[in-house]
Amino acid sequence: MRGAVIYAPGDVRVEQRDDPKIIEPTDAIIRISATCVCGSDLWDWRGINAVTEPTPMGHEYCGIVEEVGGEVGSIKPGQFVIGSFFASDNTCPHCRAGYQTSCQHRQFVGAGGAQAEALRVPLADGTLLATPEVPDDALLPSLLTASDVLGTGWFAAAAANVRPGMTVAVVGDGAVGLLGVLAANQFGAGRIIAMSRHEARQKLAREFGATDIVTERSDEGVARIKDLTDGVGADAVLECVGTNESMIQAIGSTRPGGFVGYVGVPHGVALQGEPLFYSHVGLHGGPAPVRRFLPELIDLIWTGKINPGKVFDLSLPLEQVADGYAAMDERRAIKAFLRP
Amino acid sequence: MRGAVIYAPGDVRVEQRDDPKIIEPTDAIIRISATCVCGSDLWDWRGINAVTEPTPMGHEYCGIVEEVGGEVGSIKPGQFVIGSFFASDNTCPHCRAGYQTSCQHRQFVGAGGAQAEALRVPLADGTLLATPEVPDDALLPSLLTASDVLGTGWFAAAAANVRPGMTVAVVGDGAVGLLGVLAANQFGAGRIIAMSRHEARQKLAREFGATDIVTERSDEGVARIKDLTDGVGADAVLECVGTNESMIQAIGSTRPGGFVGYVGVPHGVALQGEPLFYSHVGLHGGPAPVRRFLPELIDLIWTGKINPGKVFDLSLPLEQVADGYAAMDERRAIKAFLRP
Repeated sequence: MRGAVIYAPGDVRVEQRDDPKIIEPTDAIIRISATCVCGSDLWDWRGINAVTEPTPMGHEYCGIVEEVGGEVGSIKPGQFVIGSFFASDNTCPHCRAGYQTSCQHRQFVGAGGAQAEALRVPLADGTLLATPEVPDDALLPSLLTASDVLGTGWFAAAAANVRPGMTVAVVGDGAVGLLGVLAANQFGAGRIIAMSRHEARQKLAREFGATDIVTERSDEGVARIKDLTDGVGADAVLECVGTNESMIQAIGSTRPGGFVGYVGVPHGVALQGEPLFYSHVGLHGGPAPVRRFLPELIDLIWTGKINPGKVFDLSLPLEQVADGYAAMDERRAIKAFLRP
Repeated sequence: MRGAVIYAPGDVRVEQRDDPKIIEPTDAIIRISATCVCGSDLWDWRGINAVTEPTPMGHEYCGIVEEVGGEVGSIKPGQFVIGSFFASDNTCPHCRAGYQTSCQHRQFVGAGGAQAEALRVPLADGTLLATPEVPDDALLPSLLTASDVLGTGWFAAAAANVRPGMTVAVVGDGAVGLLGVLAANQFGAGRIIAMSRHEARQKLAREFGATDIVTERSDEGVARIKDLTDGVGADAVLECVGTNESMIQAIGSTRPGGFVGYVGVPHGVALQGEPLFYSHVGLHGGPAPVRRFLPELIDLIWTGKINPGKVFDLSLPLEQVADGYAAMDERRAIKAFLRP
């Protein structure tokens, strides 16, 4: 099969790779219908995460089940399925608590490289969910977002404790931040402040439910949020970047007793205990337990209530995956959709 | 009046000070019935917080109202009152959200020095609460704890999201930690693991509801908590110390999705973003909004349902306050009760 492999920063190639095979009786092999480039893939592309050897890339996927292992019971060949980037048994105490990305038996699905024609998904019963039937192509972009980016924005809103009527600020205008806006809107937020200085993203944020746009960053951004909230701060803040600056901005924008839901994978974040203590701001985040939200997200997409696939503003054949990385890195594209 | 003043680390003196006076029409003057030494006072005593000039000490108090300013309406002379260590208007958005220690007009009551015969309390209407009548002396220790240490343990449990049936671990066996045990018990925790290597404190922890004692610290302490919880971790952890080590221990002891309620004033705490992210552990804490809990706490004490005053294992006349600091510093006493 064809699949993407990173060799060095800025060097992602699509090449011939071995077809994935069932290894464990709990595995499934799926034929990828659509995949994409994640903001977190850019850490490798940019050389911020070291690339020590040629590594298959991609961890967002949906597709048709081709084969299942002997112990797989909940899905069968021919079904269209979506799964999280972390495989989970969905039965251990952490899964049952709704934190499937901390599953005691978790495996990184992306190890197999989802930017490819086919993928082995471990722990298929606990990881994959089938749609009611095989969807039309028009639904693929939205369904694909449920594999990671939508679930991640959704978790940011859940972790930040967003409730009806709240004022919510979203730090980060990447696909996760934009879908954090969508999630906050679905959670019933009364006011959603998107922090973005990029016109196309501001526009999409407004489509997804943003009521206000703040273009300032850091201290100026915090001051602007305070201005907009009578000096109080936002009730909930979604941190969707992962830098120290964005985290400090998120905490500073939150009212005492409010929560920051943080889902940007931290790079260089170091929090001093004393200012955090006196801020009274709560923190909750981590790798999004997408599996917890999958049933609800698939239903919302299937019934046309949300259209998160709009974050894909670039569509490419798999062979041109490197163009997708470059376009996202240079912020020419929000998110690149790939068809094998 | 007589009152305690710190001159240098290890040098707290009781001396003649000016009687407090009404300055603002929202002030009250109270005659102190009982006061005490706080764990946080020891930061000054030990020289960890700099003592730059002679400073009145003490911020935990209860007593009889002597005089009120012209705008005070909810309390009157002759009443017995208890208040938080931070004065709050109890009407601003932060107060209404239950975070009175972040009141937009907050003032540190301890600035006047509560280890004294009398004290000026600003924003009396929003800060003080009167008991049904003047209590017997026997109730004084328990009522006094509601001013800070009980409310702080209580907030740790609330911030850690303790709910019925949960397994709760408490890091720190000072008075706050011990009352965190009491709070967790009142919140209906099914199992309460007190981390302590001090026999008298273990005994009191058990009286307050601890079901298990863990004497190990740091990585060994975390491993022990994991052992006791089938490898899962505690559902909620109360961090009642404030060092980096205790914070790391608390986070490590918590299950994914669980919360650390942290109330120890941080000294040298620096949290790396990445391990916190992957732990899935939430953080919520800060200076306890004692005022939020005062009505409930006073009621529980008044009706004999809880007896938090047991944390006082040393009772001294105010004139011997320095002996109280020394005894607590050397861990000969859990908490020193003082009568002017």
